Amino acid sequence: MPSYRAPVEDTLFLLDDVLGFHNHANLAGFADASPDVVAAVLNEGAKLADDVLAPLNRAGDVEGCTRHPDGSVTTPKGFKAAYDAYAQGGWMGLSVPEAYGGQGLPHTLNTAIQEFGSGANLALSMYPGLTQGAIAALLVHGSDEQKRTYLPKMVEGAWTGTMNLTEPHCGTDLGLLKTRAVPDGDGAYSLTGTKIFISAGEHDLSENIVHLVIARIEGAPAGTKGISLFVVPKFLVNPDGSAGARNGVSCGSIEHKMGIHGNSTCVMNYDGAKGWLVGEVNRGLNAMFVMMNEARLAVGVQGLGQSEVAYQNAAAYAKDRLQGRALTGAKAPDRAADPIIVHADVRRTLMGLRAFNESARALMLWTALQSDIAHRSEDAGERQTADDLLGLLTPVVKGVLTDRGFANAVEAQQMFGGHGYIEEWGMSQFVRDARIAMIYEGANGIQAMDLIGRKLPKDGGRAMMAFLGEVQTFIKDNDEDASMTAFTGPLQAGLNDLQGATMWFMQNAFAKPDNAGAGATDYMHLLGLVAMGYMWARIAKAAVARQAEAASERMAAKLVTGRFYMERVLPETAMRLTRIKAGSDTTMTLAAEAF
Amino acid sequence: MPSYRAPVEDTLFLLDDVLGFHNHANLAGFADASPDVVAAVLNEGAKLADDVLAPLNRAGDVEGCTRHPDGSVTTPKGFKAAYDAYAQGGWMGLSVPEAYGGQGLPHTLNTAIQEFGSGANLALSMYPGLTQGAIAALLVHGSDEQKRTYLPKMVEGAWTGTMNLTEPHCGTDLGLLKTRAVPDGDGAYSLTGTKIFISAGEHDLSENIVHLVIARIEGAPAGTKGISLFVVPKFLVNPDGSAGARNGVSCGSIEHKMGIHGNSTCVMNYDGAKGWLVGEVNRGLNAMFVMMNEARLAVGVQGLGQSEVAYQNAAAYAKDRLQGRALTGAKAPDRAADPIIVHADVRRTLMGLRAFNESARALMLWTALQSDIAHRSEDAGERQTADDLLGLLTPVVKGVLTDRGFANAVEAQQMFGGHGYIEEWGMSQFVRDARIAMIYEGANGIQAMDLIGRKLPKDGGRAMMAFLGEVQTFIKDNDEDASMTAFTGPLQAGLNDLQGATMWFMQNAFAKPDNAGAGATDYMHLLGLVAMGYMWARIAKAAVARQAEAASERMAAKLVTGRFYMERVLPETAMRLTRIKAGSDTTMTLAAEAF
Repeated sequence: MPSYRAPVEDTLFLLDDVLGFHNHANLAGFADASPDVVAAVLNEGAKLADDVLAPLNRAGDVEGCTRHPDGSVTTPKGFKAAYDAYAQGGWMGLSVPEAYGGQGLPHTLNTAIQEFGSGANLALSMYPGLTQGAIAALLVHGSDEQKRTYLPKMVEGAWTGTMNLTEPHCGTDLGLLKTRAVPDGDGAYSLTGTKIFISAGEHDLSENIVHLVIARIEGAPAGTKGISLFVVPKFLVNPDGSAGARNGVSCGSIEHKMGIHGNSTCVMNYDGAKGWLVGEVNRGLNAMFVMMNEARLAVGVQGLGQSEVAYQNAAAYAKDRLQGRALTGAKAPDRAADPIIVHADVRRTLMGLRAFNESARALMLWTALQSDIAHRSEDAGERQTADDLLGLLTPVVKGVLTDRGFANAVEAQQMFGGHGYIEEWGMSQFVRDARIAMIYEGANGIQAMDLIGRKLPKDGGRAMMAFLGEVQTFIKDNDEDASMTAFTGPLQAGLNDLQGATMWFMQNAFAKPDNAGAGATDYMHLLGLVAMGYMWARIAKAAVARQAEAASERMAAKLVTGRFYMERVLPETAMRLTRIKAGSDTTMTLAAEAF
Repeated sequence: MPSYRAPVEDTLFLLDDVLGFHNHANLAGFADASPDVVAAVLNEGAKLADDVLAPLNRAGDVEGCTRHPDGSVTTPKGFKAAYDAYAQGGWMGLSVPEAYGGQGLPHTLNTAIQEFGSGANLALSMYPGLTQGAIAALLVHGSDEQKRTYLPKMVEGAWTGTMNLTEPHCGTDLGLLKTRAVPDGDGAYSLTGTKIFISAGEHDLSENIVHLVIARIEGAPAGTKGISLFVVPKFLVNPDGSAGARNGVSCGSIEHKMGIHGNSTCVMNYDGAKGWLVGEVNRGLNAMFVMMNEARLAVGVQGLGQSEVAYQNAAAYAKDRLQGRALTGAKAPDRAADPIIVHADVRRTLMGLRAFNESARALMLWTALQSDIAHRSEDAGERQTADDLLGLLTPVVKGVLTDRGFANAVEAQQMFGGHGYIEEWGMSQFVRDARIAMIYEGANGIQAMDLIGRKLPKDGGRAMMAFLGEVQTFIKDNDEDASMTAFTGPLQAGLNDLQGATMWFMQNAFAKPDNAGAGATDYMHLLGLVAMGYMWARIAKAAVARQAEAASERMAAKLVTGRFYMERVLPETAMRLTRIKAGSDTTMTLAAEAF
């Protein structure tokens, strides 16, 4: 039976020592997030994840969700009680303004809690996750009345939210969508169409479900410029604010998926469902992007969560399973064999997982901090810098953390040998669950195109220049510190590769866009490698400082793990650069019929 | 619904033009394998794979195997008829000596047919696959009586075979096994113990099941030196050769696995089962290794088979699915959107898959050809050279083809977006099925250790020296040919990295074995990259020659795909070398408690 322990200690170290979280007391909500409050929040969140969510993970996978003939959906046993515990703990509104019943704390803390939930029980944590995304969209684009109607109920968890974009014939290319909205004369619209892959589309956890739906108003322009966003509650809202008559939206079926069986992924049928416009007519994609960007970061966090739980269980197994002897002589001569953690190839795997997890966590929190600064700072320049970085890093957090998170779950499963393939051991579920994160909220190839086609050239490359400058400054500031050279040297090499790739695109991609497309995924990973390398360098600096105060095994382990990253992980940048510079000729030459 | 077409044309090209298959007419059985016969065999095998095995693949995954209260196991609907078609087609004994009812054809052909079966229906093809492994072990180590008793029945497919090694507490470290064999006084033994993960351990496809079981004879030395091999039929064999009374072996349960649901993976209970010694007392592991080496190659082939079928379906989807527009302008302006194959990132994925598949197929056939030479040549020197290469390449074919085969199935699944995660589309099954190949017959970390710890140092490194020499000679012979420089240049760079890594281990691994362990997996992949690069160079040479005769789009595509490999895949060798040279310090420093 797999287990999970939320990484509270590491999160606190990253916030306090590495990222200077408490230097931002000028931001709204940060003053309330004193070190004591942060520690208390994380410890309470960890309790929920470890003791309430994690024990339901495997049972939820086995049981899955059930759709009944009347279209209602039952979630796995225990999910309702766990969801209630989550809602009653006030977690839904942790970073939502107090005006709507939230606590107004930093989103950075919410992100840390999201990691705990994703590691403990991905399928279950998606129900509140989607709701938080819908809350974010309504906060930014909803009318005052819509906010008053929906947000307090959603923040208290009585109502949940969803995001309805995909249709059978279109996912990435939303301009093709067919769902139609017809004005019904009283200010509302009547929606008709079919949406697929709707996570948490129908379930038994909440009194009402608030669907955010994109559709085309009759006569709207073709393509993405004719898309509007609507709020479509499962039950229409009575004048007193309670849930009333059933609306014309229902779950037609639930999908048979590779994983996240505990989450109900629905085909949703809209048959003249009553909906209300959110934001402006034909500006629905802009509104949806708020939700999507928040969701993309949250999905990246899911990749880390699954990597972390897979690592924890692999490490426990490696210390427990006896098989063979160390190449350097028996380490447990009194036992039938040594625990497999003595083997260098097993160690290499475990070190690779933790080298990723610890720097991915730093990158996740650093990115979330940019989100807080971008939304809460009173300084326009500070907001802009943070927003640039947030935009640049969002596809990287989504794409790289989920690609690597899945690969790490596979590596952790591998350590179990045949047992890893047997469902009862739980490692297969981590692999199957982690797989979805590479796909939804924009498949990772789309993230790479977003990075290279939008984020990189935006404002003349300002965001990337700032990132490169920040890392270069860090290296310069530290490269005469002997305790840091093992970090700054390799980081400089990685940074040079990133600069080289960026330069190459500037010279070769404008005239030949396929050069950008063919190198996009490699560039996304290259930026991810360097960003995590930068995180490791900052972690190392903090660890050195802590070691100078008082030696600790935990800080010593940080420095070893960081060196492992520099020696064995970061050098991948050179390969990525080589591939990018190969251009698109051999990629694009063959006729489609040749495939 | 996924489909499959066996790659007959490519296999014929590789055998005829690249590997010089027909230059080996001096080997037993090769004279019978004329070009006409080879083409007929491959076409018939393809029909079976395409029309009989492939259509049952998804249904078998959904239905799975069922164990009944009496211990019997039912395979999915249609499996029995498909198995019968396989058996009646004479496929089981394709390369088995005619004396036992086989056709005595080259094992190389059998390997090509194994790829077709693995791509069409991995779970189903495992039943005959295990049987072929058991036949191989009995051929080498069985007594004449055992061969007469079992082989004809197995070759005709009336009886199937299994391989019983793993126990709950030991897989890799077989020295720990507990199954006991007690002489029963009449020349047989009584076996008692539990074996797990026994593929095809119990089913309804054959009249009898011939279990090959390793166990410890009472009083035998501890560890691997006290292991003997036994043949334990499910039904005892009557004097007339028919299946008689039930033996004391039964299926206790079947495992709930991530994939290959159509194959019954059993816990087998031996309760005083009657068994007969195969080979010598306490030399069971040696006998089992015959079966295991053959099985390891077959598992590598499974990795390729799954990569090929995943590629075929991804390519079809990429040409069919309309979404977005090409960066270089609409390619299908009359349709709502372009097919996604216009996107460079999609092309990059497809090119990567085919660049792997085509060279992995060449490597598989080249390795199988070494097996034929090693077993059938009358020239001792030729036998030794081939056997060296076979030993060196076996862990590479097993480890690299399954690691990459799985990764490729994941990449192919990714191309489907959300549909890839839905079981009905079939891509998830390819991923789940391909996953087992990295684990069984020795997890890939074990393959890497076999390569670096046994195959590399054996006979003073003779095998690796021969491999390096062969590739270097090829480069020298071709580097003044202008049509080959795009291949020989990158291949030389990869070869240099492989030589550098080999040299580094010679200098650094003897005194510090963990340096070998920490670099083993990287070294296995480094050798695989170079071996497939060498295959691409040979393919290119053959394609250039064919193009000189008559230009063909297929040969032009080969050259483009080969260049893609050289530009984008092979450069990974540099990263592997860097990692290897990092040594084991950071890998091994932390205390086990730190994990």
